[in-house]
Amino acid sequence: VASSVPDKADDLALRCSSFMTQPVTALSELRARPGDMKTQMELLIMETQSQVCQALAQLDRGATFAVDRWERKEGGGGISCVLQDGHIFEKAGVSVSVVHGVLSEEAEKQMRSRGKKFKTKNGQLPFCAMGVSSVIHPKNPHVPTIHFNYRYFEIEEADGTRQWWFGGGCDLTPTYLNKEDAVHFHQTLKDACDQHDPGFYPKFKKWCDDYFFIKHRGERRGIGGIFFDDLDSPSKEDIFRFVQSCARAFIPSYIPLVKKHCNDPFTPQEKHWQQLRRGRYVEFNLLYDRGTKFGLFTPGSRIESILMSMPLTARWEYMHAPSENSREAEILEVLSHPKDWVH
Amino acid sequence: VASSVPDKADDLALRCSSFMTQPVTALSELRARPGDMKTQMELLIMETQSQVCQALAQLDRGATFAVDRWERKEGGGGISCVLQDGHIFEKAGVSVSVVHGVLSEEAEKQMRSRGKKFKTKNGQLPFCAMGVSSVIHPKNPHVPTIHFNYRYFEIEEADGTRQWWFGGGCDLTPTYLNKEDAVHFHQTLKDACDQHDPGFYPKFKKWCDDYFFIKHRGERRGIGGIFFDDLDSPSKEDIFRFVQSCARAFIPSYIPLVKKHCNDPFTPQEKHWQQLRRGRYVEFNLLYDRGTKFGLFTPGSRIESILMSMPLTARWEYMHAPSENSREAEILEVLSHPKDWVH
Repeated sequence: VASSVPDKADDLALRCSSFMTQPVTALSELRARPGDMKTQMELLIMETQSQVCQALAQLDRGATFAVDRWERKEGGGGISCVLQDGHIFEKAGVSVSVVHGVLSEEAEKQMRSRGKKFKTKNGQLPFCAMGVSSVIHPKNPHVPTIHFNYRYFEIEEADGTRQWWFGGGCDLTPTYLNKEDAVHFHQTLKDACDQHDPGFYPKFKKWCDDYFFIKHRGERRGIGGIFFDDLDSPSKEDIFRFVQSCARAFIPSYIPLVKKHCNDPFTPQEKHWQQLRRGRYVEFNLLYDRGTKFGLFTPGSRIESILMSMPLTARWEYMHAPSENSREAEILEVLSHPKDWVH
Repeated sequence: VASSVPDKADDLALRCSSFMTQPVTALSELRARPGDMKTQMELLIMETQSQVCQALAQLDRGATFAVDRWERKEGGGGISCVLQDGHIFEKAGVSVSVVHGVLSEEAEKQMRSRGKKFKTKNGQLPFCAMGVSSVIHPKNPHVPTIHFNYRYFEIEEADGTRQWWFGGGCDLTPTYLNKEDAVHFHQTLKDACDQHDPGFYPKFKKWCDDYFFIKHRGERRGIGGIFFDDLDSPSKEDIFRFVQSCARAFIPSYIPLVKKHCNDPFTPQEKHWQQLRRGRYVEFNLLYDRGTKFGLFTPGSRIESILMSMPLTARWEYMHAPSENSREAEILEVLSHPKDWVH
């Protein structure tokens, strides 16, 4: 006879029923460790994936996302959701991964270069990493491209102690500058940050401007947002709540901009400029983005999920330079000299 | 009264008159060191640039190349010739650079990693580097993309001794496999190599297959050709003559393929596949190509000349896979398992 009071197990099943598909980790395992941060974070990234995909699909006149579940031979796996060549979106990908195993030498080296030191056992470092990552390229050049990523990392050292940290961020890449949009986007992120620490937004806004820098061009890839890494204090729970606020700020920060501009008229010249900016997006992703390079150079990683961040189409012209005082020159100026959009 | 027998100075001026523009180095300086390898090599790369540009322009119904001369603050400069959005060529660039100064730490590190050791004076290493480099992307998907590069390097050590070496190569990137074209291209390069050393072609053909490898895709970017670096024996003059043969083999190796296919009919599906392959070309250039990365990360380098190798347009689709036994699958098979085209 079924109980009339749903138990914890049913709560979990109910929550998972709204996801794009079942979580990467088996429900039985998630049930066995309900208070563990790994469980909380996996549910947050699954929830974020499903809410973002649903919001985008609804906007795109009911387009459906392809949902691909993949396994990683070395441990764990992921779920990639991609909408390609839709009505509004050229390409929109939202990917979740939950992987574990032994840290590669390359990965350890990269972490060491950021000042992390670990006590290893026979040189081996068991780790667990999970995150949600998304890049959305709309068709209309007046709707900006956007990216977000939120991730959690755990390392088990030789003596059994665990090191952990969170990383993430969200940044906007418009083809043309719209100041109202820029303020709305930054204000929404600032509000999410301010709930947790008034120092977060200014610090992570600057970090974002510094990180998304196309050095050889002397320009940023977009108008920024927030970026942070290696966040490990004051406590797991505090930072989790901060990351949760950021993840939940994505929809209100971006969807209104899509609704506002997705029917804006545009000229072939504006589409052309968008294609050139897509080229810069590719340059940043392949030459500088830590996550992309790390993924591509890690044996056994799923290339298609990493490169779903690439635009559907891009363009490179020799010596292209916008004319003075044009709207193209206006955005370039902001990309070279980032502004404070909110105070 | 002018002499009736042209002197050496006139020979040089006459030779230079066929170039796209005057050499990077002043004629007076070239005249002052006629036997020097730096002079011989600069004239060879200038001659190669002009012959290739003229052959391409003539094919492209008299299209003209933009000729940009640029100077490098730290010493030397270059000449970039680019034909964009022509009748036959989407983008064709032929660039010459002749630079000198003090080797950057980054450059020295890269050379050291290839086994080169230098005796420095206060950590400084005067160097001179010159080369010609070209990438040609045709519009018709039945005409292959091609790349070549020939370069010469000199380092002056603390005790005054000079180290020198040559590098270079030429490789073909077809959208669809045409076996006859592959054989013609490789045979032409092999003939150029065989004039100098029967061991060159097999060795440099393998080096090329190994170098132009898109590791994360498990495929080569094209059907190869030849590639070599750090060539410093038996003698400067011997290798120069070999490099000269290779450079002069470019036109007979490629132009017949353009003529043969530039009017081939093609479908939108074939153009689409070409665009996806252009995406792979971008991946190789930005993620793996030593020259591109070295250039982009070197302060003061001319970004537009380095990135003229990028296609005008490229495309990335999530999870694209050609159907079995298709012509798209046929070329992928060869890119995964390189073949010997000539014996």
